[in-house]
Amino acid sequence: MSNYHPLTESEAIQIARSIAGIFETQGELISREIGDGNLNLVFHVSQPSSGRSLIVKQALPYAKVVGESWPLSLDRARIESEALLLESRLAPGLVPLVYHTDHDLALTVMEDLSSHKIMRQGLIDGGTYPLFAGHISEFLARTLFFTSDLGMNQQEKKTLLGSFINPDLCKITEDLIFDHPYTDADTNNFDEHLRDDAKQLWTDETLHLEIALLREKFLTHAQALLHGDLHTGSIFITPESTKVIDPEFAYFGPIGFDIGAVFANLLLHFASQEHWTTETSARSDRRQYLLGTISEIWTSFESKFRALWDEHGIDRVAKLKSYQDDYLKRLLQDTIGFTGAKMVRRIVGLAHVADIDRIPDADVRAKAQRIALEIGKSLIKINRQAISIEQLIDIAEASVQG
Amino acid sequence: MSNYHPLTESEAIQIARSIAGIFETQGELISREIGDGNLNLVFHVSQPSSGRSLIVKQALPYAKVVGESWPLSLDRARIESEALLLESRLAPGLVPLVYHTDHDLALTVMEDLSSHKIMRQGLIDGGTYPLFAGHISEFLARTLFFTSDLGMNQQEKKTLLGSFINPDLCKITEDLIFDHPYTDADTNNFDEHLRDDAKQLWTDETLHLEIALLREKFLTHAQALLHGDLHTGSIFITPESTKVIDPEFAYFGPIGFDIGAVFANLLLHFASQEHWTTETSARSDRRQYLLGTISEIWTSFESKFRALWDEHGIDRVAKLKSYQDDYLKRLLQDTIGFTGAKMVRRIVGLAHVADIDRIPDADVRAKAQRIALEIGKSLIKINRQAISIEQLIDIAEASVQG
Repeated sequence: MSNYHPLTESEAIQIARSIAGIFETQGELISREIGDGNLNLVFHVSQPSSGRSLIVKQALPYAKVVGESWPLSLDRARIESEALLLESRLAPGLVPLVYHTDHDLALTVMEDLSSHKIMRQGLIDGGTYPLFAGHISEFLARTLFFTSDLGMNQQEKKTLLGSFINPDLCKITEDLIFDHPYTDADTNNFDEHLRDDAKQLWTDETLHLEIALLREKFLTHAQALLHGDLHTGSIFITPESTKVIDPEFAYFGPIGFDIGAVFANLLLHFASQEHWTTETSARSDRRQYLLGTISEIWTSFESKFRALWDEHGIDRVAKLKSYQDDYLKRLLQDTIGFTGAKMVRRIVGLAHVADIDRIPDADVRAKAQRIALEIGKSLIKINRQAISIEQLIDIAEASVQG
Repeated sequence: MSNYHPLTESEAIQIARSIAGIFETQGELISREIGDGNLNLVFHVSQPSSGRSLIVKQALPYAKVVGESWPLSLDRARIESEALLLESRLAPGLVPLVYHTDHDLALTVMEDLSSHKIMRQGLIDGGTYPLFAGHISEFLARTLFFTSDLGMNQQEKKTLLGSFINPDLCKITEDLIFDHPYTDADTNNFDEHLRDDAKQLWTDETLHLEIALLREKFLTHAQALLHGDLHTGSIFITPESTKVIDPEFAYFGPIGFDIGAVFANLLLHFASQEHWTTETSARSDRRQYLLGTISEIWTSFESKFRALWDEHGIDRVAKLKSYQDDYLKRLLQDTIGFTGAKMVRRIVGLAHVADIDRIPDADVRAKAQRIALEIGKSLIKINRQAISIEQLIDIAEASVQG
């Protein structure tokens, strides 16, 4: 890492210009740092004369959260770029193109997706994305199947796993999702009106058992190479296109964790409708759209995953129909459990979601927060008994009735 | 690996002499190659004048099995020596002392245990080992607890896991234990009188589902650093002392796999009593001794593992009593399933055990083989429902009644 230093805007331009085939030889390049400065520098480098552009993303050696800064391995930039390259091979068109990587500088040069919106903002703005369920189920089915023991040579998978050992970023998840919300931790962060709800989380032993079991899966169950942080802020979207970004949390873990991240963030947005859609029947329509999307993602994921298994399964032992059924049943259960865990942490834990935090009225916000907590806790509690995605849908619907 | 070459006996002597503090400066050293030549060279280097000795073990770059030779990574020698060093730190006195390692030459110089007997032979010779249950339960509890997420810093565990990625040796287990016995594979190897029993294994879908699930655990469940091949041929023993050797299959996998290996080999010996103990009541006593040993190992393992958890558990989330109970229940279930899988493969798969193969009379041997198969299949089928070690004992007892 001897060459490492944070890039200036003019260095970003220099690197951008060295990438063949993007910019015209003549014509000035403009660089603008557009990152939030917490974890990464993100330079948007563009050429007004040609209308072309790209992104230079560089990891910073620390994370700034709630004013504090803690050291974070630059190796996450290597992990991110290797994950992006692998994902774009497995799910072409669903991740940004990578033009160049430099592990010493901890940087990745990639496709500019400014024509897309971050999905979280898109949803807040009232957007609908009819192709999203198809795209994300394709991304999930293909990236997860082909990096699991079902679709990848099992010896090569072990070697690949060795290059995605990601202790720093996994630690964030282990603490912030699977530990702190369930105890009176300093990092917790919630509106004072939620204190009793938070305290209830800290003493619910039924919930604690399920969280311990989900956490154990996150720690030990190396099923496939996960994105690891697949919330709606890691997805660039338009009505026609979906691009999954930022796989710096990638590691080999339980498949349901990635699917659950998508569901949790759709359900957090579902809860936030208390504010974003004021008219009652429009709100109900919006919620049906979100639940319909979840249902369609699961159904499409399941049928695509099964089709890949039937067509590309490399494992003689796994050809048994009853094993495939059992495997998918467990994926659904894990998905439901992780969905719940990822909702609870966004209400009482360190990092929240704009869908809910940006609700200005405290009472409305509290209502949305309690809907999210209620859904989250219920999903965590039923996860090991779940047999159908309808159970998740029913729990979400019940949370906004009466 | 540029320096690698198979050692001669005189080179083994040279290396042995370079180890400080073992041999007297004066006095000839004698080297004798005592390995079986399949996977490793094993030099016994001794000094008659001082009565001192040591072992130089060197990995060969291939495995010779059934006349064929296939390439095998020399990295297994590094894995073996690193596992030995770690085990001797975690379970002092229960593994041979390591004096020296050389990764280029793929060799480990270690304590000579000629005063001990290989446990498989010890049992065949009618030996009893009253301290064995205490020793092996200690070895299992300490090595497995302290390399799991319960007893080891969870970030350090991920890094350690990276240095125990062991594709070649895992492949042997995946194929020979969890695949080939359940299909008409070329590598299978059984007495012709067992053909119908073998065929029945190839078509039993209930069994195939359980094997697929156990195999998935072996492939994905990185619970702790396993020995990986803990049969009675990997244990040196006297009535007073137990030393676990040969951890070249070490990798991060499901804890029950190691415990199951011990139980399977005690039960294979149990089945072989058809021949080794001819007098009926002595045979019954011998079998009770073996079952008592299994029962004591489980009970001691469980109480030691729980005690380590209570005293040295590093994980706040895991402090919940109901989680510990659930974890131990799952360990028992895995143990029972892996015990069964490891019995079946020793009857119809490639590699057998001397306890049974050395029975000269074909009818007696067939009876022992069918007892082992019956126990193995039953254990595999009940594994996910098991709640007590008594269920394993009952199945073993039933197999020799009537």
